[in-house]
Amino acid sequence: MITIVVGTNRKDSVSRQIADYYQSLLDDKGAQNQIVDLVDLPGDFVGTALYENNGRNAAFNVIREKVQSSEKLVFVVPEYNGSFPGILKAFIDGLKYPEGVRDKKAALIGVSSGVQGGVLAMAHLTDIFNYLGMNILALKPKLAAIEDNFGEGKITNALYNQLLNDQVEKLIEF
Amino acid sequence: MITIVVGTNRKDSVSRQIADYYQSLLDDKGAQNQIVDLVDLPGDFVGTALYENNGRNAAFNVIREKVQSSEKLVFVVPEYNGSFPGILKAFIDGLKYPEGVRDKKAALIGVSSGVQGGVLAMAHLTDIFNYLGMNILALKPKLAAIEDNFGEGKITNALYNQLLNDQVEKLIEF
Amino acid sequence: MITIVVGTNRKDSVSRQIADYYQSLLDDKGAQNQIVDLVDLPGDFVGTALYENNGRNAAFNVIREKVQSSEKLVFVVPEYNGSFPGILKAFIDGLKYPEGVRDKKAALIGVSSGVQGGVLAMAHLTDIFNYLGMNILALKPKLAAIEDNFGEGKITNALYNQLLNDQVEKLIEF
Amino acid sequence: MITIVVGTNRKDSVSRQIADYYQSLLDDKGAQNQIVDLVDLPGDFVGTALYENNGRNAAFNVIREKVQSSEKLVFVVPEYNGSFPGILKAFIDGLKYPEGVRDKKAALIGVSSGVQGGVLAMAHLTDIFNYLGMNILALKPKLAAIEDNFGEGKITNALYNQLLNDQVEKLIEF
Repeated sequence: MITIVVGTNRKDSVSRQIADYYQSLLDDKGAQNQIVDLVDLPGDFVGTALYENNGRNAAFNVIREKVQSSEKLVFVVPEYNGSFPGILKAFIDGLKYPEGVRDKKAALIGVSSGVQGGVLAMAHLTDIFNYLGMNILALKPKLAAIEDNFGEGKITNALYNQLLNDQVEKLIEF
Repeated sequence: MITIVVGTNRKDSVSRQIADYYQSLLDDKGAQNQIVDLVDLPGDFVGTALYENNGRNAAFNVIREKVQSSEKLVFVVPEYNGSFPGILKAFIDGLKYPEGVRDKKAALIGVSSGVQGGVLAMAHLTDIFNYLGMNILALKPKLAAIEDNFGEGKITNALYNQLLNDQVEKLIEF
Repeated sequence: MITIVVGTNRKDSVSRQIADYYQSLLDDKGAQNQIVDLVDLPGDFVGTALYENNGRNAAFNVIREKVQSSEKLVFVVPEYNGSFPGILKAFIDGLKYPEGVRDKKAALIGVSSGVQGGVLAMAHLTDIFNYLGMNILALKPKLAAIEDNFGEGKITNALYNQLLNDQVEKLIEF
Repeated sequence: MITIVVGTNRKDSVSRQIADYYQSLLDDKGAQNQIVDLVDLPGDFVGTALYENNGRNAAFNVIREKVQSSEKLVFVVPEYNGSFPGILKAFIDGLKYPEGVRDKKAALIGVSSGVQGGVLAMAHLTDIFNYLGMNILALKPKLAAIEDNFGEGKITNALYNQLLNDQVEKLIEF
């Protein structure tokens, strides 16, 4: 099972739309998959699911179980303030300890309105996930200026599509 | 005004104790200061103070105003999962836009039980704060193995004390 | 004295042309400055000026002395293979030990043919320079697609010019 | 073929000794391997093998061919000035273009006299190698305080040995 994680709790996020598109690419390859959207995290999870409360929030547990039971993960990561959304790291901070995401394999996709495409967000996440023992695919598409390159549910930029398709193939073999 | 930010919402955190100690160092130098502890963030702020709700949570606004009205900041940053706490970045994601922390000056202190002392946490935060236009002091003490080097409200490691005192002096001149 | 370092030993580099332009901006502000171009490093310095040979290459010493006697530095850093040129770090590895660049202040400018503008190069360099005790200005212009935005010795992109002028002003006050 | 790269041109380096030890671990697993020591790089390669001279230095080409013909690589990386040796990046800058290390797989080991174990060196290298399309194993042992933990050709620290053996197994399966 490949689980695509939408890395923000923003409602109706562009990242969710990218995740839906990515799902179609996985479907085309016959790869079993599901989407986990962090918008579904309980609104109070930073007070009820972290630290001494780790594991005590049932709604949070449902979401993390989907992630932690997958062998492979895909993270769609919007660039917020030059890195990943804080909410994504807070979610990671609430994973089951100590297993976390150890020995899983993941692919990262950066998304931004601006020109960077989340390059630092993905570098930081790679550090974190490597620290936690999860291998990260080298190919990390940077979908910059996303508003100009996505419409009607599809990536319209040929290079972006090439990179995403290459990543899907590499992830399946990873 | 120098504001010391405790970079986690964990209750009774070691980082808070380090912040209290740091406050005593600033007091010794006669530097006006205050502590903001992220444990005081409203428990639901990731659902009520970010994105389209930016600015709409009064309790959140009180805390961010203390930070955003300061010329200089100190961040005490515990290492969580190889980087900074997600909650700290989520707090940053809720700052007033677009001013954020632009043109402020800050000092970072890393804290860990393990051997790294938050070195990657501080590297990642430097990227983020630089992106937001805040200058970061080069000297960033890494307080590794904190349980062995802190007791009765005081840092007991001579090197750590030297580094913290140097940082305080540099921050005042920064 | 502000020393502008051309961060590559490539002959006739674009970075040198950017450095010349940057010099004109400093001249306009009446800031005393000079350029050090790493193209002038002796061709065998990695075998004759590092480690046990530190300080033994007179031609190398002339160049490092210009850098180490300056209070403020500017690094024009072309993006090579997703980071800074190896030659630049090798030059840093040959600085006088242990003083290096401690307590100096520096500004970084990234230059690339591609879309990233050296963002990771500058993040990595910030880590290194902070480790060595040199404060880095938060504002780090990323001059991406430089061939389209530079001609006849001048930056032709209005945003780039704005960023460079802002940086010059901030560096003088830093 | 697994090629172990000694990431410095320092003579008689500790990194070389670690590489020799690592070779014995690979030998124990029956994994075909060789060592490439950057001390064998021609002393003038930064003037004769980079940029417009790419490919023109025969002695340099012999070394890069050993690296570029391998499917898997191991980099033993001493920490110099808070990151990797400049010489290692300069070597990377001289690889055949554009293939570089694309689609290879690598393991990183950090080595330091101090307490960090090359953590930032490895983070920076991961960014670079990922940029170049090489997958990096998440497990990156940080061999801090190496003088206290290595003697008579062997790592004497039990945790370090555990990590290195785990890495060898993971690399073979990678």
